Amino acid sequence: MSAGNDRPLIAITTGDPAGIGPEIIVAAWSDPRVHGICRPVVVGYSEYLRRAAALRRSNVQIETCDDPQKARPSPNVIFCVAPGEDRAPPVQVGRIDPRAGQAAFEAILLAAELALAKKVDGLVTAPINKEALHAAGHQYPGHTELLADLCQRQQVAMVLYLGPGAPLRGTAGLAIAHATLHIPMREVIHQLTAEAVFTKIRLIDQLMRCIKGSEPRIGVCALNPHAGEGGLFGREESLVITPAIKRATDEGIRVEGPVPADAIMVQARDGRFDGLVAMYHDQGHIALKLLGMHRAVNITAGLPIIRTSVAHGTAFDIAGLGRADPSSLIEAIRVAAMLSKNRPSFAA
Amino acid sequence: MSAGNDRPLIAITTGDPAGIGPEIIVAAWSDPRVHGICRPVVVGYSEYLRRAAALRRSNVQIETCDDPQKARPSPNVIFCVAPGEDRAPPVQVGRIDPRAGQAAFEAILLAAELALAKKVDGLVTAPINKEALHAAGHQYPGHTELLADLCQRQQVAMVLYLGPGAPLRGTAGLAIAHATLHIPMREVIHQLTAEAVFTKIRLIDQLMRCIKGSEPRIGVCALNPHAGEGGLFGREESLVITPAIKRATDEGIRVEGPVPADAIMVQARDGRFDGLVAMYHDQGHIALKLLGMHRAVNITAGLPIIRTSVAHGTAFDIAGLGRADPSSLIEAIRVAAMLSKNRPSFAA
Repeated sequence: MSAGNDRPLIAITTGDPAGIGPEIIVAAWSDPRVHGICRPVVVGYSEYLRRAAALRRSNVQIETCDDPQKARPSPNVIFCVAPGEDRAPPVQVGRIDPRAGQAAFEAILLAAELALAKKVDGLVTAPINKEALHAAGHQYPGHTELLADLCQRQQVAMVLYLGPGAPLRGTAGLAIAHATLHIPMREVIHQLTAEAVFTKIRLIDQLMRCIKGSEPRIGVCALNPHAGEGGLFGREESLVITPAIKRATDEGIRVEGPVPADAIMVQARDGRFDGLVAMYHDQGHIALKLLGMHRAVNITAGLPIIRTSVAHGTAFDIAGLGRADPSSLIEAIRVAAMLSKNRPSFAA
Repeated sequence: MSAGNDRPLIAITTGDPAGIGPEIIVAAWSDPRVHGICRPVVVGYSEYLRRAAALRRSNVQIETCDDPQKARPSPNVIFCVAPGEDRAPPVQVGRIDPRAGQAAFEAILLAAELALAKKVDGLVTAPINKEALHAAGHQYPGHTELLADLCQRQQVAMVLYLGPGAPLRGTAGLAIAHATLHIPMREVIHQLTAEAVFTKIRLIDQLMRCIKGSEPRIGVCALNPHAGEGGLFGREESLVITPAIKRATDEGIRVEGPVPADAIMVQARDGRFDGLVAMYHDQGHIALKLLGMHRAVNITAGLPIIRTSVAHGTAFDIAGLGRADPSSLIEAIRVAAMLSKNRPSFAA
């Protein structure tokens, strides 16, 4: 375990307080690995954490503080920076509530400010509920777009990252970015551009360069079956994807493709690639879920701050039962701490 | 091991003689399991098998016969039914050759005739080369379409089947059919019809009913991310896929969906489904390859005959080296023999 000041200061937002966010924070807190790799501090209302501690029958103490740098966290004490001067609005677990959406929003806002001001080294977000966020008047599809807005960055990407470990054979894990994401399949053909593919190649390269500590190998999925079979099954490979790959190669990025999507996933699992660019949502997600989504972490690449997140949702169905699994949050904290240490090459 | 006449008589075509077909037949022949589950007989020219036996340094004897029912195969003797009276045309391994395409075509023709006349119980095909087949003047995309034509059936489907075994948790293995297959992604939206989805549900149900020996559970993939998220990410789920599922349910088929494609693959791996209908090529193939394509078998559902095939190609790059792996062929023989035994419910 490294000395106090070597460990990066990581802000963790509570997420939607009606979801499992506060519970998984309390559960993760008791894991000594978390304190070995970082100094964690919570951004959000302490009341939600006290309720979660009671639910989990945890004896952890909840302290409030106004400056995260004054926090002295340990497995026995959670330090909490509140997003406002008022008390936390009462929120029932497991229900969509605009007050919960507002509390989640305020925590993200403050955490992003702290990260931009370099008062914390990185940011880990617990899940929010989109409907509650919208009900509170904040029309963002999710964290990624909200943070891009707060940080005034346009070319950001949600990257899903699986750390090293079976069934992956690579030593640096595997990151996947998507050139298109939450759109109908009939729109993919129209919205898939060389610019989108190139941007994602570059973001994945920057991210994996930081994680791997050396030059990563990036693979790019084809769109069509058999990578278009020489034009017989589609021409987007030659018209859109190959020009993006050429541009990235010209910039010195080690990138291959377009490779048929069914073949590239097996190659990536077997360690041939450290990062992939998928052309559409399910292409990447089918592979990710089969390779172990339960341990996936969401990283926002392209921000001036370090931000990771759990890859699951608010799980309203089990919120309040005190049995939500904190392993994705612990992994998100681990990855944020690692990225903070390698900072000069990422989130600059 | 069952008595001679209990074991089904399975015809195995040589495939393209310039590929690995003859070699994997010779290699599979020495496996006693093959003879325990069926009486195998080769349809094709004996010369190609003699060359393959020499390549593999096998002492197996190659005998010719004019009637497969007279064959008395054993691990030491291969019986071969030649597709013509002439000697086999000389063909170099590893090269596209119209004479090889013609020899492969003739073997399929004879084997299908034997199966249709019930002189053999099932048919296993070794890989052919599409370019060689076309060069010989036979303009079929592959075995499936050729056999559909020879059997005068229109609603056939290539089904990929993985037998039980890790990482699959189901006891009957997993079959996947595709509502669209070898077409560009921009065509999928236009060619995906409720009729195509329904037909595939019914074929997969018939196939897995036979393999499982009881009512199978069929899952249908969504087309769009998050199964369309209530219309936000596309409407094909409600307009095309759900009506097909309803029609199948009305016919008494136990079918669920549309399920988001990334979620359904994990559910299928974990044993919730025995068969899946995928909407497009890569959707099914990304999962299949990650779940173990090397042991996949190709089954043509909807024919009046039983036909299985290896799921790999001619592998011209390693043909002639005598080291091609026969495990997919052995599995194809096992599945054909199993389907033959359960015949009344399949290929009727």
